[in-house]
Amino acid sequence: MYNPTSFSHISPQSDSPALSMNYCSHCGTAVTLCIPQGDSLPRHVCPACGTIHYQNPKVVVGAIPEWGDSVLLCRRAIEPRHGFWTLPSGFMENRETTAEAAARETLEEACARVEISRLFALIDVPHISQVHLVYRARLLDLDFAPGSESLEVRLFREQDIPWDEIAFRSITMALRLYYADRSRGDYGFHVDTIPAPTGEHYTPPPDPPFV
Amino acid sequence: MYNPTSFSHISPQSDSPALSMNYCSHCGTAVTLCIPQGDSLPRHVCPACGTIHYQNPKVVVGAIPEWGDSVLLCRRAIEPRHGFWTLPSGFMENRETTAEAAARETLEEACARVEISRLFALIDVPHISQVHLVYRARLLDLDFAPGSESLEVRLFREQDIPWDEIAFRSITMALRLYYADRSRGDYGFHVDTIPAPTGEHYTPPPDPPFV
Repeated sequence: MYNPTSFSHISPQSDSPALSMNYCSHCGTAVTLCIPQGDSLPRHVCPACGTIHYQNPKVVVGAIPEWGDSVLLCRRAIEPRHGFWTLPSGFMENRETTAEAAARETLEEACARVEISRLFALIDVPHISQVHLVYRARLLDLDFAPGSESLEVRLFREQDIPWDEIAFRSITMALRLYYADRSRGDYGFHVDTIPAPTGEHYTPPPDPPFV
Repeated sequence: MYNPTSFSHISPQSDSPALSMNYCSHCGTAVTLCIPQGDSLPRHVCPACGTIHYQNPKVVVGAIPEWGDSVLLCRRAIEPRHGFWTLPSGFMENRETTAEAAARETLEEACARVEISRLFALIDVPHISQVHLVYRARLLDLDFAPGSESLEVRLFREQDIPWDEIAFRSITMALRLYYADRSRGDYGFHVDTIPAPTGEHYTPPPDPPFV
Protein backbone atom coordinates (compact mmCIF):
# COMPACT_ATOMS: atom_id res chain seq x y z
CA MET A 1 0.00 0.00 0.00
CA TYR A 2 1.41 3.33 -0.98
CA ASN A 3 1.08 5.86 1.74
CA PRO A 4 3.33 8.87 1.75
CA THR A 5 3.34 9.13 5.55
CA SER A 6 4.63 5.57 6.05
CA PHE A 7 7.48 5.35 8.54
CA SER A 8 7.69 9.13 8.61
CA HIS A 9 9.11 9.09 12.13
CA ILE A 10 12.66 9.03 10.88
CA SER A 11 12.67 11.87 8.51
CA PRO A 12 11.77 15.02 10.45
CA GLN A 13 10.87 16.91 7.30
CA SER A 14 8.26 14.29 6.55
CA ASP A 15 6.75 14.44 10.01
CA SER A 16 4.10 16.70 8.62
CA PRO A 17 0.78 16.45 10.42
CA ALA A 18 -2.16 14.97 8.61
CA LEU A 19 -4.58 17.48 7.15
CA SER A 20 -6.90 18.93 9.75
CA MET A 21 -10.33 17.43 10.28
CA ASN A 22 -12.91 20.14 9.61
CA TYR A 23 -16.00 18.39 8.29
CA CYS A 24 -18.04 15.31 9.15
CA SER A 25 -17.11 12.60 6.63
CA HIS A 26 -20.61 11.16 6.93
CA CYS A 27 -22.88 14.19 6.46
CA GLY A 28 -20.54 17.05 5.50
CA THR A 29 -21.38 19.38 8.41
CA ALA A 30 -18.54 21.32 10.06
CA VAL A 31 -17.35 19.38 13.13
CA THR A 32 -16.70 20.76 16.58
CA LEU A 33 -14.02 19.71 19.03
CA CYS A 34 -15.37 18.60 22.40
CA ILE A 35 -15.09 15.88 25.02
CA PRO A 36 -18.04 13.51 24.51
CA GLN A 37 -19.97 12.41 27.60
CA GLY A 38 -18.21 9.50 29.26
CA ASP A 39 -14.99 10.20 27.40
CA SER A 40 -11.82 11.91 28.62
CA LEU A 41 -10.26 13.32 25.46
CA PRO A 42 -11.43 15.93 22.95
CA ARG A 43 -12.82 14.43 19.74
CA HIS A 44 -14.15 15.85 16.52
CA VAL A 45 -17.92 15.53 16.84
CA CYS A 46 -20.60 16.28 14.27
CA PRO A 47 -23.30 18.57 15.70
CA ALA A 48 -25.75 17.43 12.98
CA CYS A 49 -25.55 13.63 12.89
CA GLY A 50 -23.71 13.06 16.18
CA THR A 51 -20.87 11.01 14.72
CA ILE A 52 -17.75 10.99 16.88
CA HIS A 53 -14.67 10.90 14.66
CA TYR A 54 -12.09 8.94 16.64
CA GLN A 55 -8.48 9.05 15.50
CA ASN A 56 -6.33 6.11 16.48
CA PRO A 57 -2.80 4.77 15.91
CA LYS A 58 -1.94 2.92 12.72
CA VAL A 59 -0.24 -0.45 12.41
CA VAL A 60 2.79 -0.82 10.13
CA VAL A 61 3.79 -4.41 9.38
CA GLY A 62 7.06 -5.62 7.91
CA ALA A 63 8.95 -8.84 7.22
CA ILE A 64 12.53 -10.05 7.52
CA PRO A 65 12.68 -12.35 4.46
CA GLU A 66 15.43 -14.91 5.13
CA TRP A 67 17.41 -16.93 2.57
CA GLY A 68 20.19 -18.93 4.13
CA ASP A 69 22.27 -16.42 6.07
CA SER A 70 20.97 -13.46 4.06
CA VAL A 71 17.97 -11.15 4.38
CA LEU A 72 16.14 -9.28 1.64
CA LEU A 73 16.14 -5.48 1.70
CA CYS A 74 14.45 -2.98 -0.64
CA ARG A 75 15.85 0.38 -1.72
CA ARG A 76 13.03 2.90 -1.62
CA ALA A 77 11.77 4.49 -4.83
CA ILE A 78 9.47 6.86 -2.92
CA GLU A 79 9.64 9.50 -0.24
CA PRO A 80 10.25 9.65 2.60
CA ARG A 81 13.82 8.35 2.48
CA HIS A 82 14.02 7.83 -1.28
CA GLY A 83 17.12 5.77 -2.08
CA PHE A 84 17.51 4.32 1.42
CA TRP A 85 17.16 0.65 2.34
CA THR A 86 14.31 -0.91 4.27
CA LEU A 87 12.69 -4.21 5.07
CA PRO A 88 9.49 -4.77 3.06
CA SER A 89 6.84 -3.03 5.16
CA GLY A 90 3.82 -0.76 5.08
CA PHE A 91 0.46 0.10 6.56
CA MET A 92 -1.81 -2.77 7.47
CA GLU A 93 -5.05 -2.85 5.46
CA ASN A 94 -8.57 -3.49 6.72
CA ARG A 95 -9.71 -7.11 6.74
CA GLU A 96 -6.30 -8.76 6.85
CA THR A 97 -4.24 -10.33 9.62
CA THR A 98 -0.87 -8.95 10.62
CA ALA A 99 0.86 -11.97 9.02
CA GLU A 100 -1.10 -11.48 5.80
CA ALA A 101 -0.03 -7.84 5.79
CA ALA A 102 3.64 -8.83 6.12
CA ALA A 103 3.36 -11.28 3.19
CA ARG A 104 1.44 -8.76 1.05
CA GLU A 105 3.96 -5.98 1.61
CA THR A 106 6.81 -8.35 0.71
CA LEU A 107 5.04 -9.29 -2.50
CA GLU A 108 4.25 -5.66 -3.37
CA GLU A 109 7.65 -4.14 -2.62
CA ALA A 110 9.97 -7.02 -3.56
CA CYS A 111 7.76 -9.22 -5.78
CA ALA A 112 8.83 -11.96 -3.37
CA ARG A 113 6.88 -14.89 -2.01
CA VAL A 114 7.46 -15.73 1.64
CA GLU A 115 6.20 -18.10 4.27
CA ILE A 116 5.62 -16.01 7.37
CA SER A 117 7.12 -17.55 10.49
CA ARG A 118 7.29 -15.97 13.94
CA LEU A 119 6.44 -12.45 15.04
CA PHE A 120 9.82 -11.03 15.94
CA ALA A 121 9.23 -7.52 17.25
CA LEU A 122 6.62 -4.97 18.26
CA ILE A 123 8.02 -1.44 18.16
CA ASP A 124 5.95 1.42 19.53
CA VAL A 125 6.44 4.77 17.80
CA PRO A 126 4.14 6.92 19.93
CA HIS A 127 5.15 10.39 18.71
CA ILE A 128 3.66 9.56 15.31
CA SER A 129 0.95 7.24 16.68
CA GLN A 130 2.20 4.07 15.02
CA VAL A 131 2.80 0.48 16.11
CA HIS A 132 5.35 -1.42 14.00
CA LEU A 133 5.24 -5.21 13.82
CA VAL A 134 8.06 -7.22 12.24
CA TYR A 135 7.71 -10.88 11.29
CA ARG A 136 10.46 -13.29 10.38
CA ALA A 137 9.72 -14.90 7.02
CA ARG A 138 11.21 -17.61 4.81
CA LEU A 139 11.85 -16.55 1.24
CA LEU A 140 10.38 -19.29 -0.96
CA ASP A 141 12.43 -18.68 -4.12
CA LEU A 142 14.87 -16.20 -5.65
CA ASP A 143 12.48 -14.74 -8.21
CA PHE A 144 12.31 -11.36 -6.51
CA ALA A 145 12.40 -7.99 -8.24
CA PRO A 146 11.76 -4.35 -7.38
CA GLY A 147 8.07 -3.53 -6.95
CA SER A 148 6.78 -0.10 -7.94
CA GLU A 149 7.91 1.40 -4.60
CA SER A 150 11.44 -0.03 -4.82
CA LEU A 151 14.49 0.94 -6.88
CA GLU A 152 16.37 -2.24 -6.10
CA VAL A 153 15.90 -5.43 -4.08
CA ARG A 154 18.88 -7.39 -2.79
CA LEU A 155 19.96 -10.13 -0.41
CA PHE A 156 22.44 -8.99 2.21
CA ARG A 157 24.67 -10.92 4.57
CA GLU A 158 25.13 -9.35 7.98
CA GLN A 159 28.57 -7.96 7.13
CA ASP A 160 27.16 -6.24 4.05
CA ILE A 161 24.10 -4.55 5.60
CA PRO A 162 24.28 -0.84 4.66
CA TRP A 163 23.76 0.38 8.22
CA ASP A 164 24.32 4.03 7.30
CA GLU A 165 21.70 3.86 4.57
CA ILE A 166 18.80 2.27 6.43
CA ALA A 167 15.67 4.32 5.89
CA PHE A 168 14.05 4.22 9.34
CA ARG A 169 15.05 3.77 12.95
CA SER A 170 12.56 0.96 13.57
CA ILE A 171 14.16 -1.02 10.71
CA THR A 172 17.62 -0.50 12.18
CA MET A 173 16.29 -1.57 15.58
CA ALA A 174 14.65 -4.70 14.17
CA LEU A 175 17.79 -5.71 12.25
CA ARG A 176 20.07 -5.12 15.28
CA LEU A 177 17.80 -7.27 17.45
CA TYR A 178 17.66 -9.90 14.73
CA TYR A 179 21.42 -10.25 14.38
CA ALA A 180 21.91 -10.20 18.16
CA ASP A 181 19.45 -13.07 18.48
CA ARG A 182 20.99 -14.93 15.57
CA SER A 183 24.44 -14.72 17.07
CA ARG A 184 23.03 -16.39 20.18
CA GLY A 185 21.21 -19.00 18.10
CA ASP A 186 17.90 -18.15 19.75
CA TYR A 187 15.29 -15.84 18.28
CA GLY A 188 13.04 -14.19 20.85
CA PHE A 189 10.14 -11.77 20.66
CA HIS A 190 10.97 -8.16 21.38
CA VAL A 191 8.95 -5.13 22.49
CA ASP A 192 10.66 -1.77 22.29
CA THR A 193 9.93 1.92 21.70
CA ILE A 194 11.33 4.48 19.28
CA PRO A 195 11.54 7.83 21.07
CA ALA A 196 10.71 11.11 19.37
CA PRO A 197 13.62 12.59 17.45
CA THR A 198 15.46 15.42 19.13
CA GLY A 199 17.56 18.23 17.72
CA GLU A 200 17.21 21.75 16.49
CA HIS A 201 15.71 20.77 13.14
CA TYR A 202 12.96 18.64 14.62
CA THR A 203 9.55 20.14 15.23
CA PRO A 204 7.18 17.70 16.90
CA PRO A 205 3.75 17.39 15.32
CA PRO A 206 0.93 19.14 17.19
CA ASP A 207 -0.88 17.33 19.94
CA PRO A 208 -3.69 15.03 18.95
CA PRO A 209 -6.47 15.22 18.03
CA PHE A 210 -5.32 18.24 16.03
CA VAL A 211 -3.22 16.16 13.67
CA MET B 1 -11.73 5.35 26.05
CA TYR B 2 -15.39 4.85 25.42
CA ASN B 3 -16.07 3.56 21.99
CA PRO B 4 -19.30 1.76 21.30
CA THR B 5 -17.73 -0.44 18.62
CA SER B 6 -15.02 -1.80 20.92
CA PHE B 7 -14.67 -5.57 20.70
CA SER B 8 -17.81 -5.76 18.60
CA HIS B 9 -16.57 -8.94 16.92
CA ILE B 10 -18.28 -11.16 19.42
CA SER B 11 -21.74 -9.84 19.39
CA PRO B 12 -23.08 -10.23 15.85
CA GLN B 13 -25.80 -7.70 16.42
CA SER B 14 -23.18 -5.12 17.25
CA ASP B 15 -21.10 -5.83 14.15
CA SER B 16 -22.65 -2.80 12.56
CA PRO B 17 -20.49 -1.11 9.96
CA ALA B 18 -19.17 2.36 10.63
CA LEU B 19 -21.11 5.16 9.03
CA SER B 20 -20.29 5.55 5.37
CA MET B 21 -17.66 8.06 4.26
CA ASN B 22 -19.33 10.57 1.95
CA TYR B 23 -17.46 13.86 2.40
CA CYS B 24 -13.85 14.98 2.65
CA SER B 25 -13.12 15.64 6.33
CA HIS B 26 -10.62 18.33 5.34
CA CYS B 27 -12.56 20.49 2.85
CA GLY B 28 -16.12 19.15 2.93
CA THR B 29 -16.37 18.18 -0.76
CA ALA B 30 -18.15 14.94 -1.66
CA VAL B 31 -15.53 12.17 -2.04
CA THR B 32 -15.27 9.65 -4.86
CA LEU B 33 -14.18 6.03 -4.62
CA CYS B 34 -11.23 5.19 -6.89
CA ILE B 35 -7.88 3.43 -6.94
CA PRO B 36 -5.18 6.10 -6.60
CA GLN B 37 -2.19 5.90 -8.93
CA GLY B 38 0.37 3.47 -7.54
CA ASP B 39 -2.18 1.90 -5.20
CA SER B 40 -4.07 -1.37 -5.52
CA LEU B 41 -7.23 -0.80 -3.50
CA PRO B 42 -10.13 1.62 -3.87
CA ARG B 43 -9.96 4.59 -1.51
CA HIS B 44 -12.16 7.56 -0.78
CA VAL B 45 -10.45 10.45 -2.57
CA CYS B 46 -11.37 14.12 -2.52
CA PRO B 47 -11.65 15.53 -6.06
CA ALA B 48 -11.17 19.07 -4.73
CA CYS B 49 -8.16 18.95 -2.38
CA GLY B 50 -6.79 15.54 -3.41
CA THR B 51 -6.76 14.04 0.07
CA ILE B 52 -6.80 10.24 0.09
CA HIS B 53 -8.80 9.01 3.08
CA TYR B 54 -7.16 5.73 4.09
CA GLN B 55 -9.01 3.44 6.47
CA ASN B 56 -6.89 1.10 8.52
CA PRO B 57 -7.26 -1.47 11.32
CA LYS B 58 -7.53 -0.34 14.92
CA VAL B 59 -5.51 -1.58 17.87
CA VAL B 60 -7.32 -2.74 21.01
CA VAL B 61 -5.08 -3.17 24.07
CA GLY B 62 -5.89 -5.01 27.28
CA ALA B 63 -4.25 -6.18 30.48
CA ILE B 64 -4.33 -9.30 32.63
CA PRO B 65 -3.95 -7.70 36.08
CA GLU B 66 -2.47 -10.37 38.41
CA TRP B 67 -2.69 -10.51 42.20
CA GLY B 68 -1.28 -13.75 43.61
CA ASP B 69 -3.15 -16.51 41.82
CA SER B 70 -6.05 -14.24 40.85
CA VAL B 71 -6.77 -11.95 37.91
CA LEU B 72 -8.95 -8.86 37.81
CA LEU B 73 -12.02 -8.83 35.59
CA CYS B 74 -14.56 -6.07 34.91
CA ARG B 75 -18.29 -6.53 34.34
CA ARG B 76 -19.33 -4.26 31.51
CA ALA B 77 -21.70 -1.36 32.17
CA ILE B 78 -21.97 -0.55 28.45
CA GLU B 79 -22.93 -2.20 25.20
CA PRO B 80 -21.92 -4.34 23.49
CA ARG B 81 -22.16 -7.20 25.99
CA HIS B 82 -23.53 -5.22 28.90
CA GLY B 83 -23.30 -7.30 32.06
CA PHE B 84 -20.60 -9.66 30.72
CA TRP B 85 -17.07 -9.96 32.07
CA THR B 86 -13.93 -8.76 30.36
CA LEU B 87 -10.30 -7.94 30.97
CA PRO B 88 -9.69 -4.19 31.16
CA SER B 89 -9.21 -3.20 27.51
CA GLY B 90 -10.06 -0.67 24.85
CA PHE B 91 -8.93 1.24 21.80
CA MET B 92 -5.38 2.52 21.80
CA GLU B 93 -5.16 6.33 21.68
CA ASN B 94 -2.84 8.46 19.56
CA ARG B 95 0.52 9.34 21.12
CA GLU B 96 0.74 6.47 23.58
CA THR B 97 2.61 3.17 23.59
CA THR B 98 0.80 -0.15 23.71
CA ALA B 99 1.94 -0.66 27.30
CA GLU B 100 0.70 2.81 28.28
CA ALA B 101 -2.64 1.99 26.68
CA ALA B 102 -2.94 -1.21 28.73
CA ALA B 103 -2.22 0.66 31.97
CA ARG B 104 -4.60 3.50 31.06
CA GLU B 105 -7.48 1.15 30.26
CA THR B 106 -6.94 -0.68 33.55
CA LEU B 107 -7.06 2.60 35.43
CA GLU B 108 -10.17 3.80 33.55
CA GLU B 109 -12.21 0.61 33.75
CA ALA B 110 -11.10 -0.79 37.10
CA CYS B 111 -9.59 2.27 38.84
CA ALA B 112 -6.60 -0.01 39.32
CA ARG B 113 -2.90 0.75 39.19
CA VAL B 114 -0.71 -1.85 37.51
CA GLU B 115 2.87 -2.38 36.53
CA ILE B 116 2.82 -3.66 32.97
CA SER B 117 5.01 -6.70 32.49
CA ARG B 118 5.27 -8.81 29.31
CA LEU B 119 3.21 -8.70 26.16
CA PHE B 120 1.32 -11.97 26.31
CA ALA B 121 -0.75 -12.21 23.11
CA LEU B 122 -1.45 -10.62 19.75
CA ILE B 123 -4.85 -11.66 18.43
CA ASP B 124 -5.84 -10.73 14.89
CA VAL B 125 -9.56 -10.08 14.35
CA PRO B 126 -9.54 -9.42 10.62
CA HIS B 127 -13.28 -9.50 9.91
CA ILE B 128 -13.68 -6.32 11.95
CA SER B 129 -10.21 -4.94 11.13
CA GLN B 130 -8.83 -5.02 14.64
CA VAL B 131 -5.60 -6.20 16.27
CA HIS B 132 -5.90 -7.07 19.96
CA LEU B 133 -2.85 -6.93 22.22
CA VAL B 134 -2.91 -8.34 25.76
CA TYR B 135 -0.25 -7.56 28.35
CA ARG B 136 0.34 -9.32 31.63
CA ALA B 137 0.34 -6.79 34.46
CA ARG B 138 1.03 -6.77 38.20
CA LEU B 139 -1.74 -5.20 40.29
CA LEU B 140 -0.02 -2.77 42.66
CA ASP B 141 -2.70 -2.62 45.38
CA LEU B 142 -6.26 -3.69 46.12
CA ASP B 143 -7.83 -0.24 45.88
CA PHE B 144 -9.72 -1.04 42.71
CA ALA B 145 -13.31 -0.07 41.95
CA PRO B 146 -15.65 0.02 38.96
CA GLY B 147 -14.86 2.78 36.48
CA SER B 148 -17.68 4.46 34.57
CA GLU B 149 -17.76 1.63 32.00
CA SER B 150 -17.90 -1.15 34.61
CA LEU B 151 -20.68 -2.44 36.85
CA GLU B 152 -18.38 -4.46 39.04
CA VAL B 153 -14.67 -5.30 39.31
CA ARG B 154 -13.50 -8.50 40.98
CA LEU B 155 -10.52 -10.78 41.45
CA PHE B 156 -11.08 -14.32 40.18
CA ARG B 157 -9.17 -17.52 40.76
CA GLU B 158 -9.02 -19.85 37.78
CA GLN B 159 -11.72 -22.14 39.14
CA ASP B 160 -14.08 -19.19 39.56
CA ILE B 161 -13.68 -17.57 36.11
CA PRO B 162 -17.22 -17.11 34.68
CA TRP B 163 -16.37 -18.74 31.34
CA ASP B 164 -19.96 -18.63 30.13
CA GLU B 165 -20.20 -14.90 30.83
CA ILE B 166 -17.04 -13.63 29.15
CA ALA B 167 -17.89 -10.73 26.87
CA PHE B 168 -15.64 -11.41 23.87
CA ARG B 169 -13.94 -14.31 22.17
CA SER B 170 -10.51 -12.67 22.24
CA ILE B 171 -10.78 -12.35 26.03
CA THR B 172 -11.71 -16.02 26.36
CA MET B 173 -8.80 -16.91 24.09
CA ALA B 174 -6.33 -14.80 26.08
CA LEU B 175 -7.48 -16.27 29.40
CA ARG B 176 -7.33 -19.87 28.10
CA LEU B 177 -3.79 -19.31 26.82
CA TYR B 178 -2.86 -17.65 30.10
CA TYR B 179 -4.04 -20.53 32.29
CA ALA B 180 -2.47 -23.10 29.96
CA ASP B 181 0.87 -21.31 30.25
CA ARG B 182 0.50 -20.90 33.99
CA SER B 183 -0.16 -24.60 34.48
CA ARG B 184 3.14 -25.26 32.70
CA GLY B 185 4.89 -22.60 34.77
CA ASP B 186 6.13 -20.84 31.64
CA TYR B 187 4.45 -17.84 30.06
CA GLY B 188 5.06 -17.47 26.34
CA PHE B 189 4.00 -14.96 23.73
CA HIS B 190 1.11 -16.02 21.53
CA VAL B 191 -0.15 -14.98 18.10
CA ASP B 192 -3.57 -16.19 17.07
CA THR B 193 -6.60 -15.23 15.01
CA ILE B 194 -10.31 -14.93 15.80
CA PRO B 195 -12.29 -16.11 12.77
CA ALA B 196 -15.47 -14.40 11.63
CA PRO B 197 -18.58 -15.64 13.41
CA THR B 198 -20.72 -18.08 11.49
CA GLY B 199 -24.37 -18.93 11.78
CA GLU B 200 -27.71 -17.88 10.43
CA HIS B 201 -27.93 -14.74 12.56
CA TYR B 202 -24.57 -13.38 11.50
CA THR B 203 -24.35 -10.91 8.66
CA PRO B 204 -20.77 -10.01 7.84
CA PRO B 205 -20.06 -6.29 7.49
CA PRO B 206 -19.65 -5.04 3.91
CA ASP B 207 -16.26 -5.18 2.26
CA PRO B 208 -13.88 -2.34 2.94
CA PRO B 209 -13.51 0.45 2.18
CA PHE B 210 -17.29 0.63 2.44
CA VAL B 211 -17.27 0.14 6.20
